Amino acid sequence: MQKFFNPKSIAIIGASNKPGKIGHDLIFNLKNLGFRGKVYPVNPKEEIIVGLKNYKKISDLPKTDLAVIAVPSSLVPLVLENCGKKEIKNIVIISSGFRETGKAGEELENKLIKIQKKYQQKIIGPNCLGLINTDLNLNASFAEGLPQKGNISLISQSGAMAVAIMDWASKKNFGFSKIVSLGNKIDIDTHNVLNFLEKDQNTKIIMCYLEDFKKGQDFLKIAKKVSQKKPIIIIKGGRSSEGQTAASSHTGALASEDKVIQAVFQKANIIQAETIEDFFDYAQIFNFCPILRNKNIAIITNAGGPGILTTDTISKSKLDLAKLDSKTLKIFKSKLPQAAILANPIDIIGDARADRYKITLEAIMQDKSVDGVIIILTPQAVTQPLETAKIIVDVAKNADKPIATSFIGFQKIKGAMNYLNKNKIAHFNFPERSVLALEKAYNYYHRQIDLKKNKSSKTSPKKINHKLNIKLQKNQIAPYQVSKNILDHFGLPCAKESLAKTDRDATQIAKKFNYPVVAKIISPEIIHKTEIGGIRVNIKNEKELKEKFQKILSSAKKHHPQAKIEGVLIQKMMSGGEEVIIGAKRDHNFGPLISFGLGGIYTNILEDVSFRLAPLDKEEALQMIHETKVIKILQGARGKKSANIKSLVEILVKTSQIMEAIPEIQEIDFNPVLAFPKQSYIVDAKIMG
Amino acid sequence: MQKFFNPKSIAIIGASNKPGKIGHDLIFNLKNLGFRGKVYPVNPKEEIIVGLKNYKKISDLPKTDLAVIAVPSSLVPLVLENCGKKEIKNIVIISSGFRETGKAGEELENKLIKIQKKYQQKIIGPNCLGLINTDLNLNASFAEGLPQKGNISLISQSGAMAVAIMDWASKKNFGFSKIVSLGNKIDIDTHNVLNFLEKDQNTKIIMCYLEDFKKGQDFLKIAKKVSQKKPIIIIKGGRSSEGQTAASSHTGALASEDKVIQAVFQKANIIQAETIEDFFDYAQIFNFCPILRNKNIAIITNAGGPGILTTDTISKSKLDLAKLDSKTLKIFKSKLPQAAILANPIDIIGDARADRYKITLEAIMQDKSVDGVIIILTPQAVTQPLETAKIIVDVAKNADKPIATSFIGFQKIKGAMNYLNKNKIAHFNFPERSVLALEKAYNYYHRQIDLKKNKSSKTSPKKINHKLNIKLQKNQIAPYQVSKNILDHFGLPCAKESLAKTDRDATQIAKKFNYPVVAKIISPEIIHKTEIGGIRVNIKNEKELKEKFQKILSSAKKHHPQAKIEGVLIQKMMSGGEEVIIGAKRDHNFGPLISFGLGGIYTNILEDVSFRLAPLDKEEALQMIHETKVIKILQGARGKKSANIKSLVEILVKTSQIMEAIPEIQEIDFNPVLAFPKQSYIVDAKIMG
Repeated sequence: MQKFFNPKSIAIIGASNKPGKIGHDLIFNLKNLGFRGKVYPVNPKEEIIVGLKNYKKISDLPKTDLAVIAVPSSLVPLVLENCGKKEIKNIVIISSGFRETGKAGEELENKLIKIQKKYQQKIIGPNCLGLINTDLNLNASFAEGLPQKGNISLISQSGAMAVAIMDWASKKNFGFSKIVSLGNKIDIDTHNVLNFLEKDQNTKIIMCYLEDFKKGQDFLKIAKKVSQKKPIIIIKGGRSSEGQTAASSHTGALASEDKVIQAVFQKANIIQAETIEDFFDYAQIFNFCPILRNKNIAIITNAGGPGILTTDTISKSKLDLAKLDSKTLKIFKSKLPQAAILANPIDIIGDARADRYKITLEAIMQDKSVDGVIIILTPQAVTQPLETAKIIVDVAKNADKPIATSFIGFQKIKGAMNYLNKNKIAHFNFPERSVLALEKAYNYYHRQIDLKKNKSSKTSPKKINHKLNIKLQKNQIAPYQVSKNILDHFGLPCAKESLAKTDRDATQIAKKFNYPVVAKIISPEIIHKTEIGGIRVNIKNEKELKEKFQKILSSAKKHHPQAKIEGVLIQKMMSGGEEVIIGAKRDHNFGPLISFGLGGIYTNILEDVSFRLAPLDKEEALQMIHETKVIKILQGARGKKSANIKSLVEILVKTSQIMEAIPEIQEIDFNPVLAFPKQSYIVDAKIMG
Repeated sequence: MQKFFNPKSIAIIGASNKPGKIGHDLIFNLKNLGFRGKVYPVNPKEEIIVGLKNYKKISDLPKTDLAVIAVPSSLVPLVLENCGKKEIKNIVIISSGFRETGKAGEELENKLIKIQKKYQQKIIGPNCLGLINTDLNLNASFAEGLPQKGNISLISQSGAMAVAIMDWASKKNFGFSKIVSLGNKIDIDTHNVLNFLEKDQNTKIIMCYLEDFKKGQDFLKIAKKVSQKKPIIIIKGGRSSEGQTAASSHTGALASEDKVIQAVFQKANIIQAETIEDFFDYAQIFNFCPILRNKNIAIITNAGGPGILTTDTISKSKLDLAKLDSKTLKIFKSKLPQAAILANPIDIIGDARADRYKITLEAIMQDKSVDGVIIILTPQAVTQPLETAKIIVDVAKNADKPIATSFIGFQKIKGAMNYLNKNKIAHFNFPERSVLALEKAYNYYHRQIDLKKNKSSKTSPKKINHKLNIKLQKNQIAPYQVSKNILDHFGLPCAKESLAKTDRDATQIAKKFNYPVVAKIISPEIIHKTEIGGIRVNIKNEKELKEKFQKILSSAKKHHPQAKIEGVLIQKMMSGGEEVIIGAKRDHNFGPLISFGLGGIYTNILEDVSFRLAPLDKEEALQMIHETKVIKILQGARGKKSANIKSLVEILVKTSQIMEAIPEIQEIDFNPVLAFPKQSYIVDAKIMG
């Protein structure tokens, strides 16, 4: 990406002398904002464009690092071809009128892809805004002006969102380093830019607006690596099915499912913004504050009400109200008025002037039991908003913990708020929002530490022994023996079981296991066994078993006359364990998604299921179990002994390993898995090709 | 309250000539903002205060409608006494230093309550800001200036919140009619003010900030009545236990539990704001827009991204994306550019000027399949924010459906945003927020209709037949026969059952019912029956029953040697029904809270329970069932026939009736209730005194 963001020479193909035309704005921005590289307008008719020498043909151009194309869509293939011939490798296609407009546009876009492959070009777009690098005063986009310089870089699939974000950021005094709009992404995708930004010295925070992922696994890998160094805040459009429809009519994106996306963000430690407001709020906290390392928050307020409301929000978050140090309390007792509430939230009451905020804030900054501060101000009779803002700015200069502010009101606090914004203090119109932002920072920091730990203790997934000779048919359930071999090979704990072809087999097996036993029909074509009477439980003796054996076979034949019957599985009957389900599904974009949840009759109704992407380590598997309410059941909430959670962790990790080792497997369904105090057992396994 | 908001004469006790003193600001506000009534300063030393004749003693005062007290807390009892002697009945106590400061303050406050009772005074406060009535240019508070006149009235327990809200409102061009801060509420409470505002012609919307309720049932009754005429938007502080602690140190409030509060708001059709931001957002929608009558929303946007994000939010709400009328689509096809996305969200694309917004908006306003509109604008190259705002203002003048706007950015949209605010168009910094506000309006409107319907079809709760002669001991489980009598009296369907004193009784009963049966120990002292082996199920014959009968008795005696055993209940064993729980608990403040939820082993773990306050009608009972995931089970999600939901509704309604009819009952626990396709049965009932 180096040549995109740091070009020495840029050609604008489709340059124009007419203000209001994109081809004009591009040249204007390149010429007038301080960019020192060479700028070559290309237009078949003109001599001079915006005071620069014009080239009539691409073939006339001197050596060019970057071409920006802004001609009507129908001409883009030809222009691209000519760039190829001229050996221009880095291209931004601003023109729209491709996939986003329907069938004909899609065909046109496919032409571009062919040319790109032929000449091995790197392309951003089409249907995009262009890019900006404030370090070089480079604005190769048709957005007006240059944003303030700073350490945020922005990747936006939508050009309009990029413009709106830049404009909003001007209020908050956000500074940007690189900005790029990716449009239809026929070549360069988010992960390519992330990879570049990882090493970009001027980028400290990355903000992304995305609608889809084209190469999911690349994105995941790179995002996970980059987020270890720099926070990545993403807002993803098209998370609902309706939003997806809107997204697909917008840029022709095929949006992935919400749950997969959440698993991706979790895996890669990406800070996910649900709304545009979240997006800006989170950016503020990361941009302006030291990271929140622990969860103890102090609230300083001159009014009880908003303090209480903020406390309510903290209690719903992962954060806690700090218990203040006795030293701090001593300072407060000697320096604050008697009516002040010295507990946390610290209500320094309505007549607090700036000096009282100063005393309180300084003491809190020294208090080691406080990790972050929220300062609330409401404009009352003697309140000094601006003076208070100045004190906060002073204290924040040397702060090693985050300070979030919320001055509530408008007219009376406007000046103070502007002062805070100007001096890069995180300010939230409403104090509850600061809690959400701080919580995200806290989560990011701790997940970062987790990932570092995991990296060093990483064990590679168990390699499949190819002697197993796995053959799976697409969209078909694997035969019993294949499935059994896989489970055995990975050492997964199953119920005692054996396949019987005849009722004599069955009784011999049952004798070995001791009664009671369970008998189940086994046929790849019979998926819903219970419904056709294909499962009989609690069989207590030989006579009963023989009888049930025949019944199972006859009802199977009755309901599925064509089905290939492999036999009847005889299983040692187990009871008293807690039922859970463990599964996996291969996402076409991001690979295997492992699931864990409540088993039994309520599985589908309660949807108490957690998800993670493979590869799964033990820590993540444990988190999955803890994210569901099942953990309470496993820990003995029903008055029983706790189940062996470690054994469930192991099954989860191995499920992930199977999915990684055998790419032919599309789905795994262990339902139920029974968890006992000593061990867990897979009672029913379904593996799908 | 008439004399509070419309006094002809006001005395300020503790008036002062010193600027910055509350006693000065009060006089200043009354004299200089246009109030035409008489103002009497009272101060023991002065002759003239802020140009007005001063009274040295309360006894010197002419006839006075309203006294405002702003003296140090220790003097307040004396002043109040003197007001009493002078027959001043309406009093605002601004002074702080009472219950909110601890024990001594609480005692002082109790003195005030005694005096208030003695003289039958009406008191607002203490520890409050005062009150405002813009209709009369009356500002009897120490808040600066007079807010803009308008149709919102504001009740705030916290004075600081009132000031912050007024200041914030100045940005949005909100106008106020009445504003009152209630402080510690020793007398006048929220419901008194609500009752007054119901008939106040200048009040169209009521906003409240609350921390506690003192007379819950009065509040509920009045709020329910008032909300039928005017929307009441409430933000309640102290909803978490931490928030409650903060609230109680703040105004000495003992905040009620969150679940009860939600049931109260649901019952009274109160619009609940979770955060301060919600509070303002909801006020905007109700203040500026016609009500949203149906749920079909159109989104007009010049950028795909925010349109998609807004769609995502709609899909999570009760609202829907409107399917546009074919007539509208025809207009779009002929007048919008080809690249525009004519589905909903309607993406009029990046080069949309104001005229394109006009064409689109006008067509949408005519479209009968659209109930509300969200207009999104991002500032792109040729976008005309201000011109677009003007078009919206014009169209909104005659609109019969709500228009919410969201112009995203800052510098480039500031002018347009101000224009929208000035012209009372609902504007949200972020479009997702408009969805939440519209959803609240939709919910309010429909609940209002429901309440109107219910009112006309209302049946009064069944009166208890006092021949029943109910005697319940406090905190004790009612004896079996008492409980049984109550259930029978209300016609509640129970499992076939009968109490056996001896094993002979038991076998005779079982014979009548047919085996299998269940046997249960019955003793008011034995609550956890299962744990001591006090319940035996699936008893199949006489021999087994005799054996189990003795086992039950002996283990009961072993574990509870002192317990009074009433006998062993023999119950017809029922299986195959769906287990639910129905219960009730009497809240000390708001009365009986009825609950419904998932039964069985997961009840406590999954906490899938819904709540409503009594009296419960059938519609509400049905809603309760539908609010839980149990509905899916009842509707046959497990492959069985649907359960009889009507019979569950009946049990819920009757549970509510029992609680209303027998105030001695503190708790009812029907657990489990088994729901079958034809009927539901209470299998275990516990009634607590």
